[in-house]
Amino acid sequence: MAAEQDPEGRAAARPLLTDLYQATMALGYWRAGRAQEAAEFELFFRRCPFGGAFALAAGLRDCVRFVRAFRLRDADVQFLASVLPPDTDPAFFQHLRALDCSGVTVRALPEGSLAFPGVPLLQVSGPLLVVQLLETPLLCLVSYASLIATNAARLRLIAGPEKRLLELGLRRAQGPDGGLTASTYSYLGGFDGSSNMLAGQLRGVPVAGTLAHSFITSFSGTEVPPDPMLAPAAGQGPRVDLAACVETWLERVCGHLGLGVQEPHRGERAAFVAYALAFPRAFQGLLDTYSVRRSGLPNFLAVALALEELGYQAVGVRLDSGDLLQQAQETRGVFRTVAAQFRVPWLESIPIAVSNNIDEEELARLAQKLVSVGGQPRMKLTEDPEKQTLPGSKAAFRLLGSDGALLLDVLQLAEEPPPQAGQELRVWPQGTQESCTVRPAHVEPLLRLWVQQGQLCEPLPSLAESRAFAQRSLSRLSPAHRRLEQPALYQVALSEKLRALVDRLSARGAL
Amino acid sequence: MAAEQDPEGRAAARPLLTDLYQATMALGYWRAGRAQEAAEFELFFRRCPFGGAFALAAGLRDCVRFVRAFRLRDADVQFLASVLPPDTDPAFFQHLRALDCSGVTVRALPEGSLAFPGVPLLQVSGPLLVVQLLETPLLCLVSYASLIATNAARLRLIAGPEKRLLELGLRRAQGPDGGLTASTYSYLGGFDGSSNMLAGQLRGVPVAGTLAHSFITSFSGTEVPPDPMLAPAAGQGPRVDLAACVETWLERVCGHLGLGVQEPHRGERAAFVAYALAFPRAFQGLLDTYSVRRSGLPNFLAVALALEELGYQAVGVRLDSGDLLQQAQETRGVFRTVAAQFRVPWLESIPIAVSNNIDEEELARLAQKLVSVGGQPRMKLTEDPEKQTLPGSKAAFRLLGSDGALLLDVLQLAEEPPPQAGQELRVWPQGTQESCTVRPAHVEPLLRLWVQQGQLCEPLPSLAESRAFAQRSLSRLSPAHRRLEQPALYQVALSEKLRALVDRLSARGAL
Repeated sequence: MAAEQDPEGRAAARPLLTDLYQATMALGYWRAGRAQEAAEFELFFRRCPFGGAFALAAGLRDCVRFVRAFRLRDADVQFLASVLPPDTDPAFFQHLRALDCSGVTVRALPEGSLAFPGVPLLQVSGPLLVVQLLETPLLCLVSYASLIATNAARLRLIAGPEKRLLELGLRRAQGPDGGLTASTYSYLGGFDGSSNMLAGQLRGVPVAGTLAHSFITSFSGTEVPPDPMLAPAAGQGPRVDLAACVETWLERVCGHLGLGVQEPHRGERAAFVAYALAFPRAFQGLLDTYSVRRSGLPNFLAVALALEELGYQAVGVRLDSGDLLQQAQETRGVFRTVAAQFRVPWLESIPIAVSNNIDEEELARLAQKLVSVGGQPRMKLTEDPEKQTLPGSKAAFRLLGSDGALLLDVLQLAEEPPPQAGQELRVWPQGTQESCTVRPAHVEPLLRLWVQQGQLCEPLPSLAESRAFAQRSLSRLSPAHRRLEQPALYQVALSEKLRALVDRLSARGAL
Repeated sequence: MAAEQDPEGRAAARPLLTDLYQATMALGYWRAGRAQEAAEFELFFRRCPFGGAFALAAGLRDCVRFVRAFRLRDADVQFLASVLPPDTDPAFFQHLRALDCSGVTVRALPEGSLAFPGVPLLQVSGPLLVVQLLETPLLCLVSYASLIATNAARLRLIAGPEKRLLELGLRRAQGPDGGLTASTYSYLGGFDGSSNMLAGQLRGVPVAGTLAHSFITSFSGTEVPPDPMLAPAAGQGPRVDLAACVETWLERVCGHLGLGVQEPHRGERAAFVAYALAFPRAFQGLLDTYSVRRSGLPNFLAVALALEELGYQAVGVRLDSGDLLQQAQETRGVFRTVAAQFRVPWLESIPIAVSNNIDEEELARLAQKLVSVGGQPRMKLTEDPEKQTLPGSKAAFRLLGSDGALLLDVLQLAEEPPPQAGQELRVWPQGTQESCTVRPAHVEPLLRLWVQQGQLCEPLPSLAESRAFAQRSLSRLSPAHRRLEQPALYQVALSEKLRALVDRLSARGAL
């Protein structure tokens, strides 16, 4: 299988993006005559991140791309030769040069699936040597993607379905691709978009953004725009000097608000005018550069009302510091009185966006009041997929009640027949010593076959499709499991046969 | 300036790796006739990360590469056109197509420099529009690199200069490049190497690694190696059946340790033998797959002593779970008695490496006892380079005493003459209301000119050179400032003129 053309124009992950010990172990297997032995590994986690009872599976598209393109180039093999012992058998490097994933099969939860502790996110099988080399890069591709998607899903649950949530974390990310990964998978997990343009260009994530404090502070107010004239929105009628019109409106706004007309910062106003000239249909005011109440708000209102005379509606404001909730409430109050005073009803309800270190707690405080929120997901990685305990190749099923609610997930041996809808089943919930019986109304297989012997088995859904799937999946989870703090734990159970195998191996000390 | 060939074969960061608002602001500046206006921005932080009193500057090499290669391709401009208003003046996009960094100048602390709050890590000047587009990617490239380098430097200070520190965090990183960044800059900050092979191949970071638990559990002990024969290290003499020799040694080791010969896991032993056959000169035992004391340790000793008969020295052991310190001490005790019993003196002091979630506290506990440590840097980003407060273009100097100790850093206006060695200087330490005088024996300019009008001014040091520079820089910092908890704060002071300008602007409400 030749390395396919990378649709992003760059290899997101390359074969040498792996721990050296994967290569030393590969040599160990090869020397032991085991390179072609059939092997399988699974990626799963033991505890849900962020103290919740669910995670979202993500990263599959990157894994599939990586597996299909996997091929060691000459330079890669030369590098390996430089870090392995000088007397390593040259036949080993010949073996590496010929290596690809044509013998590799990947099963996985579809992207956006609910994932629970112990249920594999990904099963990779194939020749031992190549499967070993894949382990670290696939872990790297799945761990952070799933973490960030889960974080986004939690923030979405807090905010409710209507609020706009934007990811703005690029400048704090772990380097360029850390940012790209975060932007992509926060969208998958339920955000509406990102500030990261590369995520828009490469992944189709909707992008958003207007202006920063630096834009505002760069204007002193003495600048003379080359062309302050703006045509009406409808295209009919003469062009108007927006800057002059704004000054007229400023007097009326300040009069209404009881402010001196000198109080609002003129550089800030010049910046708003410059932005409005460039984006008359998408004017947003960033209010907190100097003083929200005495400067940002009156300057915004003067520009918004001048634009309104020309038939343009401002799209909203943003607050980026201080007590976001209190300022947002005060700002909303001002919008209401100004809307009434100047008979501009749409102004009453324009979006107030907030940003700046918004975590779950702050979002919960804000969510009742605001329309749009920019959050930076926290980065606490709590998956622990390293130490595998359940033996053998497994299958996983989700059992549902007659109302479509999730009952529990069942892990069983791959060779067992799947659970049947309507039939009673005895299972052993993890972490307990007792079995229980369950009679599912519906049974869903969890792990789908995506790559078989190196070939893609079905097209991957688009990012937007996976995002919608994630929201549908979450909606089926009961409120007790969906709760973000001290949730009821969702049960994952073992089949009788798998449980018996675990018991046998434990008794022999093999686990 | 044409985009240069990326030496890594991939663009680590691309022009669209930026927040959308940088592009909307660019259009705002362009519409206001300010695209070519001279502008400068600085990246700095307000508080040192991790509660310390210093940070290390890092990321410059990625910034320089990014700036020199900066060029919007047609596809980039088309994407921008798709997210900006449809009636945007086409001349703006023409302007973008022609954009490069031939007018951009970069001053920065050399990589590995000590950095303190308020002192710019990076100063970027050039035409306003292009400088605005550079802000987010450069922030992204500097923030995490400096954070991870600082973290590594702190861990190095705890461990002392002799211990081996390895970064093993790839599988938990923020995607592929998050891992590459962490591996690169933890090396710069003082680690000895990384498990990440791509960091070795692309950045020259020394790589290390041996074997994982999965390698050990994949052996049952019933495997028959195709060739169990090993030649002596010196090359002279007959080849020996290593597996058979190990069984002989196992009996002697178990006898000495008071263990039954059946207790050590035979699969683990088979894995050790397989690894030793592949790496007779670099055999390391991972001891904690089953039981360190009853299995891992006797199996390791049997293989190490069999290898020793052939003239090979094992390179050490690794512990990856449980109470690392206690196990390491017990293991060292066993090595001592076995070394004496079997007259193998080198065994007494072979390295004991530990890994698994080692933070500063755990490292401090371990550092007195152990030789080699693998840590995963924590990821708490505490820089706050967003809200600039000190006006104008600045220069920065480090003042030193006659013994070479660091006295303080001085920020002043770019047009002021530099402080002179031996001359008294009045400065205003940040965060205080009083001035002080200082008479430096030496004065060092901090910000070096790296890129002027798009041209590289001097070759960038290699990563290893920067790493050495970082350690020299740290060694000049006094113990009180170097302390990791509740350190004495290192003073950064303003010159009289800069202080006066700040006062004037504050009085006018411009700050």
